[in-house]
Amino acid sequence: MREAAANGQLALLLEVAGTPKPGNVDRRREYPDLRFEHFLAGAVGARPGLERAAGDGPLGEAFERAIGGMSAQSGGNTQFGALLLLAPLVRAAATDRLDPEGATSVVAETTVAGACAFYRAFDHVDVAVGEPPADLADLDVRLGSDALEAVRDRGVTLAEVMALSADVDGVAAEWTTGFPRSFEAAERLLSDDGPVSRRVSRCFLRVLAEEPDTFVVTRNGREVAEEVVRRARAVLDGDADAVALADDLVDRGVNPGTSADITAAAVFVALERGLEV
Amino acid sequence: MREAAANGQLALLLEVAGTPKPGNVDRRREYPDLRFEHFLAGAVGARPGLERAAGDGPLGEAFERAIGGMSAQSGGNTQFGALLLLAPLVRAAATDRLDPEGATSVVAETTVAGACAFYRAFDHVDVAVGEPPADLADLDVRLGSDALEAVRDRGVTLAEVMALSADVDGVAAEWTTGFPRSFEAAERLLSDDGPVSRRVSRCFLRVLAEEPDTFVVTRNGREVAEEVVRRARAVLDGDADAVALADDLVDRGVNPGTSADITAAAVFVALERGLEV
Repeated sequence: MREAAANGQLALLLEVAGTPKPGNVDRRREYPDLRFEHFLAGAVGARPGLERAAGDGPLGEAFERAIGGMSAQSGGNTQFGALLLLAPLVRAAATDRLDPEGATSVVAETTVAGACAFYRAFDHVDVAVGEPPADLADLDVRLGSDALEAVRDRGVTLAEVMALSADVDGVAAEWTTGFPRSFEAAERLLSDDGPVSRRVSRCFLRVLAEEPDTFVVTRNGREVAEEVVRRARAVLDGDADAVALADDLVDRGVNPGTSADITAAAVFVALERGLEV
Repeated sequence: MREAAANGQLALLLEVAGTPKPGNVDRRREYPDLRFEHFLAGAVGARPGLERAAGDGPLGEAFERAIGGMSAQSGGNTQFGALLLLAPLVRAAATDRLDPEGATSVVAETTVAGACAFYRAFDHVDVAVGEPPADLADLDVRLGSDALEAVRDRGVTLAEVMALSADVDGVAAEWTTGFPRSFEAAERLLSDDGPVSRRVSRCFLRVLAEEPDTFVVTRNGREVAEEVVRRARAVLDGDADAVALADDLVDRGVNPGTSADITAAAVFVALERGLEV
């Protein structure tokens, strides 16, 4: 039986290996500056942080360590959101409570120090995020460690920071609601059959078709995000071709990163629940 | 700077990600029962063993641990030979002597206990190896731990075991001669340019064209191995297409595993010497 940190790392690798994953880097598609090899190096670098997430030290610091390691490659942000989902799920698995209630309790245990570590993680890598509301400008994650005074003054925990952006960020929404999309997608992976990389591709398409990808909303606007949902549904209905959609989205630089993050989280849960590789 | 064990793991991943690599599993080619995902899981499982190789415990045991972890996937032998090269090279890097002399001294430090661990590694996974000479039948590696009594009786170290098959096994030959092909190929990777996965593909082709792949000799016979050398040279000379060669060799089940092992070792050395990902 693979340990939780190893399954976390394997989930990152299987996610990026799934093909086609329309709009995302996969085994067959790359962006000129964001390539498959950067995701491999990101997963290698994340391992010590994932080991910490499986340990009993503070979770926010484990996440920061994972991001520091992930960033040690030249492609930029490869797996920030995926690791943000994996950190609490790895902790839940390592403490034998990998279900929505257990993951919710992991989230509830996060602290103000955890929030500070989360902000420091943004010092390691540029992450595309939207503008915060005016009354939360001092908690803008893009400030990185420059926001630490405000975080401490306001006394917000990592769980509370995530709740602030749950309506505009699909990863944060998972944190605040017991990771429902991650757990559901994991069950679909388990009930599917065939090579894992094909299952991951199908899983990703289903996640993509569920609702607008918040990373696409932030970078390309809501209209494009809604177009992606419609076209992903057409692929699932057999009315369009996944490979053609993948090629078109990569050509246009439409990269549904949040759906990829949730897929990685789903692969992790599925591995913990017996998905065989 | 990535640590030696992390670079060892990344080398395994970059090797399998390089495409085309005629005859081998890569990002675009798989065998029905030996798929890309098995190599990802093999690299994930090998990490704790690579960490031990970077530590100061016995090297043979570190190798055995790496193989135990690598084997925790359903594809069978994915990276036995690569890890057999990486173990001493990771040790050499971790002790600041990653050059032919340093690697030779690591080999010279191996023990009878290390040889025993090497034999135990064969209990974890089926490895295609040839028949030993009759006077060495009791040291047949395929006996796995059933050979331990003979290993102890004869008092052979791991270095001596490798020397026994150096003339029929390209990995063992590296062990006994200071890893010349691995170090040379690393320099070619460093002087090349462009995405790492393309460099790995070109590096592999050069290794393939150097001399008959001993894994192909064992499984497919010397004639096929010599054909592969000729055809790899034709690709390097611009007279044949690498993709066509890759498709043909995979169709025929001709898998030049030793050349892949040496390529993985070369990627590791190159990473340690500054190859940027």
